[in-house]
Amino acid sequence: MGLQKNKEALKLHSRLKGKIEIRSKIRLSSKKALSLAYTPGVAGPCIEIFRDRKNVYKYTAKANTVAVVTDGSAVLGLGSLGAEASLPVMEGKCMIFREFGGIDAFPIALATHDPEEIIRTVKLISPGFGGINLEDIKAPECFEIERRLRKELDIPVFHDDQHGTAIVVLAGLINAAKATKRNLRSLKVLVNGAGAAGIAISSLLLKFGLRRITILDSRGTIHRCRHDLDLNNFKKKVAMKTSDYCLKRSKRGHGQVDCSRCMNAGLDSAIVGKDAFIGVSKAGLLKSSMVRSMSSKPIVFALANPVPEISYSDAIKAGAAVAATGSSDSPNQINNMLAFPSVFRGAFDAGASEINDEMKIAAAVSLAGCIPPRQLNTKKIIPDPLEKRIYGIVSRAVRKAALDSSAARK
Amino acid sequence: MGLQKNKEALKLHSRLKGKIEIRSKIRLSSKKALSLAYTPGVAGPCIEIFRDRKNVYKYTAKANTVAVVTDGSAVLGLGSLGAEASLPVMEGKCMIFREFGGIDAFPIALATHDPEEIIRTVKLISPGFGGINLEDIKAPECFEIERRLRKELDIPVFHDDQHGTAIVVLAGLINAAKATKRNLRSLKVLVNGAGAAGIAISSLLLKFGLRRITILDSRGTIHRCRHDLDLNNFKKKVAMKTSDYCLKRSKRGHGQVDCSRCMNAGLDSAIVGKDAFIGVSKAGLLKSSMVRSMSSKPIVFALANPVPEISYSDAIKAGAAVAATGSSDSPNQINNMLAFPSVFRGAFDAGASEINDEMKIAAAVSLAGCIPPRQLNTKKIIPDPLEKRIYGIVSRAVRKAALDSSAARK
Repeated sequence: MGLQKNKEALKLHSRLKGKIEIRSKIRLSSKKALSLAYTPGVAGPCIEIFRDRKNVYKYTAKANTVAVVTDGSAVLGLGSLGAEASLPVMEGKCMIFREFGGIDAFPIALATHDPEEIIRTVKLISPGFGGINLEDIKAPECFEIERRLRKELDIPVFHDDQHGTAIVVLAGLINAAKATKRNLRSLKVLVNGAGAAGIAISSLLLKFGLRRITILDSRGTIHRCRHDLDLNNFKKKVAMKTSDYCLKRSKRGHGQVDCSRCMNAGLDSAIVGKDAFIGVSKAGLLKSSMVRSMSSKPIVFALANPVPEISYSDAIKAGAAVAATGSSDSPNQINNMLAFPSVFRGAFDAGASEINDEMKIAAAVSLAGCIPPRQLNTKKIIPDPLEKRIYGIVSRAVRKAALDSSAARK
Repeated sequence: MGLQKNKEALKLHSRLKGKIEIRSKIRLSSKKALSLAYTPGVAGPCIEIFRDRKNVYKYTAKANTVAVVTDGSAVLGLGSLGAEASLPVMEGKCMIFREFGGIDAFPIALATHDPEEIIRTVKLISPGFGGINLEDIKAPECFEIERRLRKELDIPVFHDDQHGTAIVVLAGLINAAKATKRNLRSLKVLVNGAGAAGIAISSLLLKFGLRRITILDSRGTIHRCRHDLDLNNFKKKVAMKTSDYCLKRSKRGHGQVDCSRCMNAGLDSAIVGKDAFIGVSKAGLLKSSMVRSMSSKPIVFALANPVPEISYSDAIKAGAAVAATGSSDSPNQINNMLAFPSVFRGAFDAGASEINDEMKIAAAVSLAGCIPPRQLNTKKIIPDPLEKRIYGIVSRAVRKAALDSSAARK
């Protein structure tokens, strides 16, 4: 982003002092309005909720309210900036929740990085919220925090950096396979980066039936034979399910052979012959020569933010049949906002108590389907996030999946 | 409240499903708007806040945002209804914060009654808030929670049930003394009820220079000679400062005499000869005969909610020169909303890091002053809460007091 644009963004933020605001739905201009909406009238709904807690969905904003929760440990691509510095991003999310999902979302920036404290705090503040959107919490803490909150709360909990990204990537990949006339499920995919997004993308692709997935972290490919201590349970779990995890396979099975080569395998060797590269790693990691070493008609999703693993034009120049980045300045922008407002809208409309895999897959498939076959091409695999109609389409698909998979609240 | 009105209130609440909503301040209809308010533009303010945390007041909603925090342990006059059931009240507060203070207020209903957990949770969520309004938390826990949060946070913390009530009571008493042509500071005042409101009212009256205050709890008058274990530190502290605390005084000093009589003194003996009764206790406690036993031209504030200690008309019939209740159906409504929106507005406008006694007194004095001398009479001692102009007047007085008393943020 140019210096001029940066200045403009600072100016906008300092003029607005907050991108969201809280409004009253009623004009309090008469004694009667005040007596119905506040005392003594307010006692009525209080008592009804006290009698049956489910009435909180009937008489308050809970049913439509999301907490956008962060600890500021992984803000944008910028790292651990802390709670206060994460607020402009959280307010941005809330703004998008309102504009594209019709949802009341409020930022909760926590002054702790301790997973247990984060879990406890979210649980304690949960009575007023209908859903929890976890945001910009670093891996691996984010996995445990989400797992526990999903288990211990009866409202949808969704870590957007994981699942929002995964949904939009799957949607893009569905259309990239179509645009290049290939069978999606037999694509050989390299996921570069095993943080929150990398693990979630791999999991969702696996759930969708792709099998030939290799995941690469900063130390090499992730596979069964790797016994290094830093391989957390979440990495292990997903690695166990990929069939393409070990570069040096042996008939005698994994763990029986010397895997030092593939453990040290860098991106340059892991990418050879792959059909698709999905980068959720770091700026500039993907060289043109690597793209050229991929299979024919390669698909390159370079999603590092704000600077991708390879620029859109360099990927195309190097022979990519389809390229996508996180930027709105080139075709095929993979943008989380294509998913999260509709996912929560659909979950809320279904009265869902969770966001399950069926709902995520429904979101991805319907998002991909938003591009009519005639318009689909290598430069148009994913809708424009400003196209408002898609949010209705995707949220209805999520709602249906929630109802069909009995994610609904008891 | 009649059954019909109750039905109407329930209908309103179920139609609105939440009395507040969160809105975006920007229309996100162009790529440019999105790129300035969200990625990549949002990185600018994030980095500026990371560099200097004070910039959070410049680039986010923090400076104008209040958390309305409760644990649902003392909801209205209804008791411990729990977090969910408190939400209609909390949303109501937020609505009033917006309409009368121009403040973004958001309800945080906590699923715990443990003071330490409440304190910790509020501290953890505080980065996004410019102020904390504690609400409907029962005594004595509310005292310690507020004390600790005031000490440990650098933003204003204000328990409205205490200080909001105290401010409006002081304002009413200032004008009641004027309307009955008496010296406020020499009034003999009986505060009936030693919960959150009773203690705070007594403290503020003491701070304002009233000395002849007697506080009564459910076991009798509170005074130095009382050694019963349930007399918490907050009661003790305020009791030590009242000069009129012991009904049976002795030249030999307190604690030296048999105080069993005054310990067991009920309202009927404590009220004899008092100039003012301030009830923050229970419905119907004040009998007409008790009003008749007060000094001449007695002032009766019967503030129990929703049913007062004595009705307005019964108080007047029994000889009260001035009567006030919490109800809007009779003259002189003592309503917290006359204080809290302006108190926070003034604190925010001053960049105050706390709400100190000077600010509370300024609020009370300016609120009393909102009634011009010619309009002041025994039936008009306090402004109508729907009169919007008073909020500007009071908030400016609070702002000035904050600046004069150096409550401003460092």
